[in-house]
Amino acid sequence: MLKKIVLTGARGALGTELRPALAKLTEALVSTDIVDAPDDLAPNETFVRADLAKMDEVAPLMDGAEMVVHFGAIPDEGPFETLLGPNYVGAYNVWEAAYRAGARRIVYASSIHALGLGETAAGLDTDAGHRPDTFYGLSKCFAEDMGRMYWEKRGLEAVCLRILSCTPEPQNVRALGTWLSYRDMVQLVERSLLTAVVGFTVAYGVSANTRAPVSNDRVRFLGYRPQDNAEDWAEAITAKERTPRADDMGYTRLGGPFAKVPLGESGVEAIRRMAAED
Amino acid sequence: MLKKIVLTGARGALGTELRPALAKLTEALVSTDIVDAPDDLAPNETFVRADLAKMDEVAPLMDGAEMVVHFGAIPDEGPFETLLGPNYVGAYNVWEAAYRAGARRIVYASSIHALGLGETAAGLDTDAGHRPDTFYGLSKCFAEDMGRMYWEKRGLEAVCLRILSCTPEPQNVRALGTWLSYRDMVQLVERSLLTAVVGFTVAYGVSANTRAPVSNDRVRFLGYRPQDNAEDWAEAITAKERTPRADDMGYTRLGGPFAKVPLGESGVEAIRRMAAED
Amino acid sequence: MLKKIVLTGARGALGTELRPALAKLTEALVSTDIVDAPDDLAPNETFVRADLAKMDEVAPLMDGAEMVVHFGAIPDEGPFETLLGPNYVGAYNVWEAAYRAGARRIVYASSIHALGLGETAAGLDTDAGHRPDTFYGLSKCFAEDMGRMYWEKRGLEAVCLRILSCTPEPQNVRALGTWLSYRDMVQLVERSLLTAVVGFTVAYGVSANTRAPVSNDRVRFLGYRPQDNAEDWAEAITAKERTPRADDMGYTRLGGPFAKVPLGESGVEAIRRMAAED
Amino acid sequence: MLKKIVLTGARGALGTELRPALAKLTEALVSTDIVDAPDDLAPNETFVRADLAKMDEVAPLMDGAEMVVHFGAIPDEGPFETLLGPNYVGAYNVWEAAYRAGARRIVYASSIHALGLGETAAGLDTDAGHRPDTFYGLSKCFAEDMGRMYWEKRGLEAVCLRILSCTPEPQNVRALGTWLSYRDMVQLVERSLLTAVVGFTVAYGVSANTRAPVSNDRVRFLGYRPQDNAEDWAEAITAKERTPRADDMGYTRLGGPFAKVPLGESGVEAIRRMAAED
Amino acid sequence: MLKKIVLTGARGALGTELRPALAKLTEALVSTDIVDAPDDLAPNETFVRADLAKMDEVAPLMDGAEMVVHFGAIPDEGPFETLLGPNYVGAYNVWEAAYRAGARRIVYASSIHALGLGETAAGLDTDAGHRPDTFYGLSKCFAEDMGRMYWEKRGLEAVCLRILSCTPEPQNVRALGTWLSYRDMVQLVERSLLTAVVGFTVAYGVSANTRAPVSNDRVRFLGYRPQDNAEDWAEAITAKERTPRADDMGYTRLGGPFAKVPLGESGVEAIRRMAAED
Amino acid sequence: MLKKIVLTGARGALGTELRPALAKLTEALVSTDIVDAPDDLAPNETFVRADLAKMDEVAPLMDGAEMVVHFGAIPDEGPFETLLGPNYVGAYNVWEAAYRAGARRIVYASSIHALGLGETAAGLDTDAGHRPDTFYGLSKCFAEDMGRMYWEKRGLEAVCLRILSCTPEPQNVRALGTWLSYRDMVQLVERSLLTAVVGFTVAYGVSANTRAPVSNDRVRFLGYRPQDNAEDWAEAITAKERTPRADDMGYTRLGGPFAKVPLGESGVEAIRRMAAED
Repeated sequence: MLKKIVLTGARGALGTELRPALAKLTEALVSTDIVDAPDDLAPNETFVRADLAKMDEVAPLMDGAEMVVHFGAIPDEGPFETLLGPNYVGAYNVWEAAYRAGARRIVYASSIHALGLGETAAGLDTDAGHRPDTFYGLSKCFAEDMGRMYWEKRGLEAVCLRILSCTPEPQNVRALGTWLSYRDMVQLVERSLLTAVVGFTVAYGVSANTRAPVSNDRVRFLGYRPQDNAEDWAEAITAKERTPRADDMGYTRLGGPFAKVPLGESGVEAIRRMAAED
Repeated sequence: MLKKIVLTGARGALGTELRPALAKLTEALVSTDIVDAPDDLAPNETFVRADLAKMDEVAPLMDGAEMVVHFGAIPDEGPFETLLGPNYVGAYNVWEAAYRAGARRIVYASSIHALGLGETAAGLDTDAGHRPDTFYGLSKCFAEDMGRMYWEKRGLEAVCLRILSCTPEPQNVRALGTWLSYRDMVQLVERSLLTAVVGFTVAYGVSANTRAPVSNDRVRFLGYRPQDNAEDWAEAITAKERTPRADDMGYTRLGGPFAKVPLGESGVEAIRRMAAED
Repeated sequence: MLKKIVLTGARGALGTELRPALAKLTEALVSTDIVDAPDDLAPNETFVRADLAKMDEVAPLMDGAEMVVHFGAIPDEGPFETLLGPNYVGAYNVWEAAYRAGARRIVYASSIHALGLGETAAGLDTDAGHRPDTFYGLSKCFAEDMGRMYWEKRGLEAVCLRILSCTPEPQNVRALGTWLSYRDMVQLVERSLLTAVVGFTVAYGVSANTRAPVSNDRVRFLGYRPQDNAEDWAEAITAKERTPRADDMGYTRLGGPFAKVPLGESGVEAIRRMAAED
Repeated sequence: MLKKIVLTGARGALGTELRPALAKLTEALVSTDIVDAPDDLAPNETFVRADLAKMDEVAPLMDGAEMVVHFGAIPDEGPFETLLGPNYVGAYNVWEAAYRAGARRIVYASSIHALGLGETAAGLDTDAGHRPDTFYGLSKCFAEDMGRMYWEKRGLEAVCLRILSCTPEPQNVRALGTWLSYRDMVQLVERSLLTAVVGFTVAYGVSANTRAPVSNDRVRFLGYRPQDNAEDWAEAITAKERTPRADDMGYTRLGGPFAKVPLGESGVEAIRRMAAED
Repeated sequence: MLKKIVLTGARGALGTELRPALAKLTEALVSTDIVDAPDDLAPNETFVRADLAKMDEVAPLMDGAEMVVHFGAIPDEGPFETLLGPNYVGAYNVWEAAYRAGARRIVYASSIHALGLGETAAGLDTDAGHRPDTFYGLSKCFAEDMGRMYWEKRGLEAVCLRILSCTPEPQNVRALGTWLSYRDMVQLVERSLLTAVVGFTVAYGVSANTRAPVSNDRVRFLGYRPQDNAEDWAEAITAKERTPRADDMGYTRLGGPFAKVPLGESGVEAIRRMAAED
Repeated sequence: MLKKIVLTGARGALGTELRPALAKLTEALVSTDIVDAPDDLAPNETFVRADLAKMDEVAPLMDGAEMVVHFGAIPDEGPFETLLGPNYVGAYNVWEAAYRAGARRIVYASSIHALGLGETAAGLDTDAGHRPDTFYGLSKCFAEDMGRMYWEKRGLEAVCLRILSCTPEPQNVRALGTWLSYRDMVQLVERSLLTAVVGFTVAYGVSANTRAPVSNDRVRFLGYRPQDNAEDWAEAITAKERTPRADDMGYTRLGGPFAKVPLGESGVEAIRRMAAED
């Protein structure tokens, strides 16, 4: 039983899934987000509204924290100036405050967009280097490099989860490879918290999809064993989607639509636009 | 539903397995071989007799083709002069005609003999380079390199399937590792056709054998999930076969008997001879 | 059916498991150890007491041997001078005598301690180089290098099994990754004996643990398919063990307690001491 | 003759060396820094005082720029909050403004501290990944990743020069390996500007030192041929410096004193302190 | 002193340079080409007109040959059908005839176009795989793979020289990296002939250019030490050539203009056209 | 100035070259060998006769030692039993005694025979793994692995010099690649002693031979810059030596004659026999 977990981004889609699961692993769960508290707090859960871009709001959260699950950020591409506070400075504030408070480990929602310009067909594993596709992805590169440094210089552990497409169900052909189900996401965070020693580790957030384009083979020590497979949706999804051009970067690159969205423009909107076109 | 598939080598053992499966995936299947038509054409299937070594016989087949499944070739080692037309020039004709006709993709029956002198025990994956064991294997190297070039310069996609031992049942100890069942072969071709974007991809044609000597781990994005395992035949087969010498290239190299057959002489006969000796 | 197998270390914990299994694979099993004979010899089993450090006691065992399963050694860290005879000279005597007798293959109980200073989180495969953690591990490095040389210069095959934690049940959190069940160990030795051709091969001795830190992906050709998974013990074990420091080499390195035991001092005692502290 | 070069950090030690050299390569050199203009402007040189952390001061500089030599930043470790503006936001402003202005290429003063925790004895080449040693080094990681993205998504070229120890003369034993003379630094920038096509390229800023710990072998296409060798100072320097402990990270890691300075504290002061201790 | 050397392509530009040099290394030089004899035969030189595409003209040349220097081929891109005889079948005929005649080694004029779509900035060495840019380059891939097979199966040695730009003087900016002077070309062939044992070796044909984009570091055992450096022409050449676009494949890829010439169309003409445009 | 150096093998050919050079680097040189003292001791040099296989003779030598140059061993292949004491146990005694005495570093005469079965044409660098060709080479593998362990567990540094052919002049065609001149050997030992921090480092002992088959590119940080080149002897040597068969392991493998000498038989005699045959 962990002493205290701090969860950032607690009111986001993924944070909302994580809250009850984390509450079971710890004596005290401190959930935080930039919006109001949810109305379904667990008995051992406290909610603190905070702006991650402000150190004086972040630091108090960390008091006595053993683990930090850092999922709070703008979850979309946008102008660098817009992401700078929440995604860059926010990540720094979390790491620095966690370190000062003596926390043991950060489990971080990194993203496939840290290497979104990587080739889908390359079969990359967790050693693959950065090729960000957006300022959003670049913020993940920044935090991963920072996480390695805090581990190597200060002994603060980190697991960076390069999440692919975490949604209730897979939503398009790309997601037949990239989908991460909610329960697999929760399991992956749990394993990242409960594995005895992790140092600095990178893992992909992807379910047991038949078509998964990336590999966690080198981090089996985490004990992550996903339960879901997007293939169960394959027939329905492929029936709906037009065949892309052979050089469509939305398919040839791991980042999907983010690989072709102009820098600084919303990838979420690009995805909607693409979906509408089909 | 694909508009039109052209299948070469349609009357070979593998082509015969593929015909009904491909007919279901397309509005129009054009089957071709150098021999007469089969008597069991599907309703949407046309057969055209053609010599792949002759461009004027190949080109007309491709009109309107979306995909080409190129399995037509002499399936055995022989003198270079004998293989030159069907296996080398034939491959060129197929790629060039497909390109001119605006086809999207070629699924090609490459072979393990493109790297038949590779070490069985090396655990090679799909990045492994060429080490042909025969003029037959060399023709596969030629077509793989050509396929990469047509993709990189002209945008014509290709999946090169390095087929190991595709037979109804595994036939000897080597095949306990190298067997590819017919239904897994069909699935692999289907996945190669249906995956949205493939660029230039190499995959091994091998079933889910416990002892498989090569790995498709890097091309999981294709979604190939083989169903069969030669291990089910292991007891019966191992009881019959004598233990080879430790340096027997028929075992130490991926190409099996082709690895030791003299260049230009039939490997199929060598396999029969070896089987008879046991 | 193998003509004759010689098993060294036949009275050790692992040898005792192997004896009945090996007796079924061979016409004649010669079991040997430095202590007295067991009282449950199989009908086709002979026991010869021998000191592996003495060539004149080893050589006679090998007469007519087809395969040698070399598991005899001091199974713990100790002063170099103590290990020199049984673990170093003993291995040489076994290889040399086997070669002189015309044996085909040696299956050797190597150990994870040959690379016990390797990183747990690195996801190493069978190509990983030596980083011994003890004089015990160093003796395994010595024998692996010797085994490669006997294969490359003399054609004597070898399978070096880098055994992790072979016990009846997993005993601690580390073993949730490193456990090798007895029946998986027996299967791995059987596969090492029965695979037609092995040349010089290294494989990890580990069960199908969800958390396995090392990979046998490159030696699937051996056909080893482990049946057990330490994860079945996870809940009970994790409940008992204190969380280690993030930089505890007993967790960060593959060798576990051996990675931090002083050179020349018993790792078995260190393990007991650690267990007592929990 | 280049149309226009913008040089940031023009009043720093390296910028001061670069100004006359760049003035010869271009019709118009725009030099900028956060301090006052130098009094030795070349005839075709203009100086504009600007704060790189402010886009509205950076953007006007770029009008009509063909090349940008971005050397402006705080050249030392400090608190993240201190570096955020000049080193992080400043780099973004330069890349974004250069892109908007249609510039062709950025030559960037990256630093060995982007991988300052890399092993000195590892013989790393330009493919080596990030292991920052400081917030300063982390800003270089950030800019390198950003530079790759601007190239891959927007076609803005970049050469990232991982400068080691650029001083008039080598100053200590470490610098016998890491020294970059001023004239070699100038040559390296010139080659980065004049090479016809560079895409995204990383090169080490190091002279032809006999003891150079990193390698530019993979980027010979840049045509950089350093003229100086710190070995000429070896005798004098080694006579003065005490032998470090074998595990002194100031020697075992590429970052030297930065590898051991606490995060956020001045490495320059650490270097002075170390020098004083000798 | 070698017994007999056969030189194909003896009347080409490179063959003409080689003839007197080879005549000094051998008792008997047999020069051959598809055109008439030169009028400056060395005393120990015989010229035989032959069409390499015809085995009955190639085979007689090889009688008693110790070494074959195979430089005969169409030295330009063209339709596959045009290259098939001279470049593909011709290479086969040379290897097969040399083997039948008991020759020891073939020194082959391969070409950078075997990997002409490789990245200029990647710093490739001799292990780099095939990425042909033309049917011309593809013929080199074919012959390299064949050469490896003849070595591995039949013990016929080969050195494949991937020649970059072999001309009297470097002719454009690309050639500042890719130039191979005539005397360095001759030296490289000499070293390929005189090195005691070569097995199957690939080396780049490039002078000691400051800007050389590829590396022979892994084949230093050949003892090739080039004397010339295109940098001596740098100033004159760079003054004449316009700066290319950043994504100009004539610069970003090793194959230069061949990387962008349409398949089957003359690269030599493309080069002329490009030169005229400057 | 080093406090005390212990040199083993001081009366061997290489030790004799080293003695005066080492005497200049240290206040006290203790030279040792299993034979009598030389008659040319330097003023600060002491000679102690000792059998390295006996710890009680080795230990006293190390008192106060800062560096150990361990060159004492049987310099030839022989039966394992013969080499066991001097080469295996001797190395252990030196490392253990040096550690107990608080020495900082061991410079060890390893040998190319630790990977003597490696391919000559592979262009190996210092990361290449062990492939011993003899019991002699195997003893070098043993000591290298031990050296890594003493560094990683106990902080005792080591530089393992894989010496190729150290003789006054190159003696045969193989040595045109493998020669190490005496003065380059001395320089390499000096650099190994004087480099500030080395951890565990492997370097090749080879001169600046044009034909050098192995590479020190990854250990340039040592500052070794060889002065001699066997090429100066090339003409005279190649005139005398017959051309070997293409598959002669004396040429195709790094170990030269040791690669083909039977295990346990003198390689020195094999070399003499080969020389006599020419």
